Amino acid sequence: MTYTNPLRDPQDRRLPRIAGPCGMVLFGVTGDLSRKKVMPAIYDLANRGLLPPGFSLVGFARRDWADQDFAQIVHDSVKQYARTEFREEVWKQLAEGFRFVPGNFDDDEAFERLRRTIEELDEARGTGGNHAFYLAIPPGFFGDVVGQLQEHGLATPEEGSWRRVVVEKPFGHDLESARELNDVLGGVFDSGSIFRIDHYLGKETVQNILALRFANEMFEPIWNANYVDHVQITMAEDIGIGGRAGYYDGIGAARDVIQNHLLQLMSLVAMEEPTSFDAESLRIEKQKVLSSIVLPNRLDLTTARGQYVQGWQGGEKVGGFLEEEGIKKTSTTETFAAVTLHVDTRRWAGVPFYLRTGKRLGRRVTEVAIVFKRAPHLPFSESSTEELTHNALVIRVQPDEGMTIRFGSKVPGTAMEIRDVNMDFAYGGSFTEASPEAYERLILDVLLGDPPLFPRHEEVELSWKILDPILESWAKKGKPDTYESGTWGPESADKMLARDGRVWRRP
Amino acid sequence: MTYTNPLRDPQDRRLPRIAGPCGMVLFGVTGDLSRKKVMPAIYDLANRGLLPPGFSLVGFARRDWADQDFAQIVHDSVKQYARTEFREEVWKQLAEGFRFVPGNFDDDEAFERLRRTIEELDEARGTGGNHAFYLAIPPGFFGDVVGQLQEHGLATPEEGSWRRVVVEKPFGHDLESARELNDVLGGVFDSGSIFRIDHYLGKETVQNILALRFANEMFEPIWNANYVDHVQITMAEDIGIGGRAGYYDGIGAARDVIQNHLLQLMSLVAMEEPTSFDAESLRIEKQKVLSSIVLPNRLDLTTARGQYVQGWQGGEKVGGFLEEEGIKKTSTTETFAAVTLHVDTRRWAGVPFYLRTGKRLGRRVTEVAIVFKRAPHLPFSESSTEELTHNALVIRVQPDEGMTIRFGSKVPGTAMEIRDVNMDFAYGGSFTEASPEAYERLILDVLLGDPPLFPRHEEVELSWKILDPILESWAKKGKPDTYESGTWGPESADKMLARDGRVWRRP
Repeated sequence: MTYTNPLRDPQDRRLPRIAGPCGMVLFGVTGDLSRKKVMPAIYDLANRGLLPPGFSLVGFARRDWADQDFAQIVHDSVKQYARTEFREEVWKQLAEGFRFVPGNFDDDEAFERLRRTIEELDEARGTGGNHAFYLAIPPGFFGDVVGQLQEHGLATPEEGSWRRVVVEKPFGHDLESARELNDVLGGVFDSGSIFRIDHYLGKETVQNILALRFANEMFEPIWNANYVDHVQITMAEDIGIGGRAGYYDGIGAARDVIQNHLLQLMSLVAMEEPTSFDAESLRIEKQKVLSSIVLPNRLDLTTARGQYVQGWQGGEKVGGFLEEEGIKKTSTTETFAAVTLHVDTRRWAGVPFYLRTGKRLGRRVTEVAIVFKRAPHLPFSESSTEELTHNALVIRVQPDEGMTIRFGSKVPGTAMEIRDVNMDFAYGGSFTEASPEAYERLILDVLLGDPPLFPRHEEVELSWKILDPILESWAKKGKPDTYESGTWGPESADKMLARDGRVWRRP
Repeated sequence: MTYTNPLRDPQDRRLPRIAGPCGMVLFGVTGDLSRKKVMPAIYDLANRGLLPPGFSLVGFARRDWADQDFAQIVHDSVKQYARTEFREEVWKQLAEGFRFVPGNFDDDEAFERLRRTIEELDEARGTGGNHAFYLAIPPGFFGDVVGQLQEHGLATPEEGSWRRVVVEKPFGHDLESARELNDVLGGVFDSGSIFRIDHYLGKETVQNILALRFANEMFEPIWNANYVDHVQITMAEDIGIGGRAGYYDGIGAARDVIQNHLLQLMSLVAMEEPTSFDAESLRIEKQKVLSSIVLPNRLDLTTARGQYVQGWQGGEKVGGFLEEEGIKKTSTTETFAAVTLHVDTRRWAGVPFYLRTGKRLGRRVTEVAIVFKRAPHLPFSESSTEELTHNALVIRVQPDEGMTIRFGSKVPGTAMEIRDVNMDFAYGGSFTEASPEAYERLILDVLLGDPPLFPRHEEVELSWKILDPILESWAKKGKPDTYESGTWGPESADKMLARDGRVWRRP
């Protein structure tokens, strides 16, 4: 692997986009996010030749480490989690840019050391004053860190260079706290330098929603209330909360998944065609969707929430949420959430969007299902269409990335019996190109300063405006319903759809 | 296998349709059609339990055979060509109903013997006076045979029973001869008792065109001139004319395939929704299409024809059409034909239908391709859609029966490069039910008196009205173009599409 960064036509989207001179400072180097996602993604980018030759990675943590201790941590992470194969020469060149700065977030001297380290890197490795600060730490510390960055002159780039900050969900726990959080970040960085990672937007399957809709002629004509009966967006996990009790309790499924991932997915599915795919055009269209979303009147009948109790999963008996370590026995945190949303636009009037997410469900799967109406008239005998349901276009976000269309076909050998069949497109079978991890794409976009895949604060606010009334109605009711682990959520979720004469998919 | 014919709800299309008491008289028992298609289909129907227990098959030919000689011929045919496994007990019961009547078509005594044989069968095997006369003979003899049937009282059923006549293409060689042929048949049988076999209409994939269009919600909204750029209907054969010089010379590809199979396929693709799938409703819609078809002004530029010359096929050197045994060296018969047709309706105005057929082409394949327009606007950079062509929905009639949708998808790992991908539905993968042969379905329909899949004389006439001006223009021009065996037809066919800015599919 040689690190070349030849002159590229930036307009030619087929050529690899390679980051210019830059470095990254990673806060929270010992956490899961850093070890499982960020560090492996950086190696994979380097391995693909997409990082500049002098790329530098500075770790900052309250550990008594030298540079080589930090390098060892990254090494272990890369060995275990990187997508691409380990190549000694790539690793060596990358590791030369590793530095470690020990210190607390309230330690002025530590940030002074960080400043000197960055200056040294600009000098020695040509990072050119361009640095991204990746806050892989709890949001409660964002204020401390960006305050220190500002105080020590790290947040403000010199003329011709850049400084960016990268944050992950949760972006607050309601509208008010989201605004506060944004004030904290926005007080130090301008909005174009704040990159909020919603890793779902980095997934190939999610980016493909826009390609599917707007590069083709076949789908957009039927992508509206004339033909669509309803939309189901599902993110199901089979695991429980694992070791994340501290984060999860009091947050719950709706805040953890619907507020960000599912509402972003819904925006991409429901949006009008953007004038282009630049960040501003996309943001305008996503905001239009989010601000057109209205809640039904009876939230008690059109939402559902549940907490998993013990049950069977993958042939194993598993415990309930209230038995998880670190969870209070009186916790009312929901591990399953389902909501009904309407989009008050000409395109979507009357088409419900059903969003659901949960832990300890039947299977790990994320999908968007556009379920079409039945044909307005069936010139067949009644019995011949008994096994025909609704046409559906299903985007499989993960796993088995791809798309399925379900439609009715004549059963061979019968006079004219119609039955559902599937036609299928799988990424694996259609492309020799491997799908990068979402974090590879998103980190590269941060380093390139390419913002289309990052939600803006306005979108975060609008999402909370949608969720807050639901969360309040749930808080009033107290205890959530329960569901057995390994099932598809509480009975109330099924009833919620049954009232509309519909059923959840069992994906 | 037990032969039961329980009471069935005739409205319930899911239950097997079983023929009532009846028999068939087969003229032309030694021909390819009888041996390769009709006899095996009769056995397969018996094996599937769809024939009545007393079903009888009478062979009529100018041979000095006894019943058991005829039975041996059928036996050999079934062993070689039947789709389902050979079962001794099924064969035994079926063979008990075999009779042979030797004689010429002009031999009154032979037809007297046929009459007595049928009476005997009605008596002995309970065929109830219901008999179908299958004319697997050259159309030149139709007049003789139906005249004899009439003269000997065989064409007229007794009260409560039926007599039907089954004929195969060619239904004449132009409008005038088609009308004469129809007068011959129609002078003896009423139109509801004449069954014209177009075996393409018996194919599962062809019947599924109507299911696909009218049982689903997704396809019909884009099935019109707003979204469709053009339609390509292809029936390509890799074989030459084989031993059929006597039939083929002077007939050619257009009369042999376009007049019947391809125009019928086109009718199903282009028709409006019928009020039901009964024969009359279908006929009305097919006739509407056929009578709306108009030819372009310049037939020299919008049609193409060719004769194969020697070339390579499947790694073997093969000879040209003029070198085939029985073909005159001066023959101008075309072995490839392509035509441009327009349907002057609100739905299809401006959408050309390109039909082509030929022998000794690159591959054996029959397909209908609906090629869509490009999206009216692509909010992508130009280079990112360079590898994106037109969306297409392709119905694979044979082989590899199924359907493919071609659409644009994002290439993994790129910023937003779009490339064509396919999604696929295959009968084999979706149904455990095996697809019956077209002749099974069609013969069963004859015995049941179920006419929707048989073209009516009106359709035959309309088809000739479309083809006659093309054939005349070709006759004036004399020699057809040539194409090498194993290629996709003459250069003139490619130029014909290139003039419209389009290209043929290479299926």
